[in-house]
Amino acid sequence: MYVVLVYDISQSENGQKRWSRVFKICKKYLSHIQNSVFEGEISKVQLVQLQQELKPYVDKDLDSVIIFKSRHERWLDKEFWGKEEDKTSFLI
Amino acid sequence: MYVVLVYDISQSENGQKRWSRVFKICKKYLSHIQNSVFEGEISKVQLVQLQQELKPYVDKDLDSVIIFKSRHERWLDKEFWGKEEDKTSFLI
Repeated sequence: MYVVLVYDISQSENGQKRWSRVFKICKKYLSHIQNSVFEGEISKVQLVQLQQELKPYVDKDLDSVIIFKSRHERWLDKEFWGKEEDKTSFLI
Repeated sequence: MYVVLVYDISQSENGQKRWSRVFKICKKYLSHIQNSVFEGEISKVQLVQLQQELKPYVDKDLDSVIIFKSRHERWLDKEFWGKEEDKTSFLI
């Protein structure tokens, strides 16, 4: 399936470190397209793995992670303005 | 159509002011669901209006705005973890 993952990690409670862990984990599975936004094709199994890896670093009272899931990428048109992030997906 | 809009506004070049203008404009048309993420049903005409309003505040060299568009909301499943943003959509 095709997913868009957006996260917001609070600066408090060691937030900078959590942000960077979340970033690195997402980057293992998805492409980085904006500051805290990732996208890409991912299997159900991989998505569960991703969620398991993220869990320890996402504080449910402070942070939020939203995952939009679509069965096909073609169901989602994407419009992009402005500067593009690096495209080094699947690398850390 | 159903859209998810994510933006990243640089802190430089009067960034805080631009961020807050972008936020207010998005909030006129869509629901705020995360720090810099909005979603909602919007017509093509409204989306063009939204883009016209945003244009003066988005610096193409510094900022980015990504709009994911789906013809039907049901084509997109949404999974949410953590704290929820206010739901005062369509209000400023």
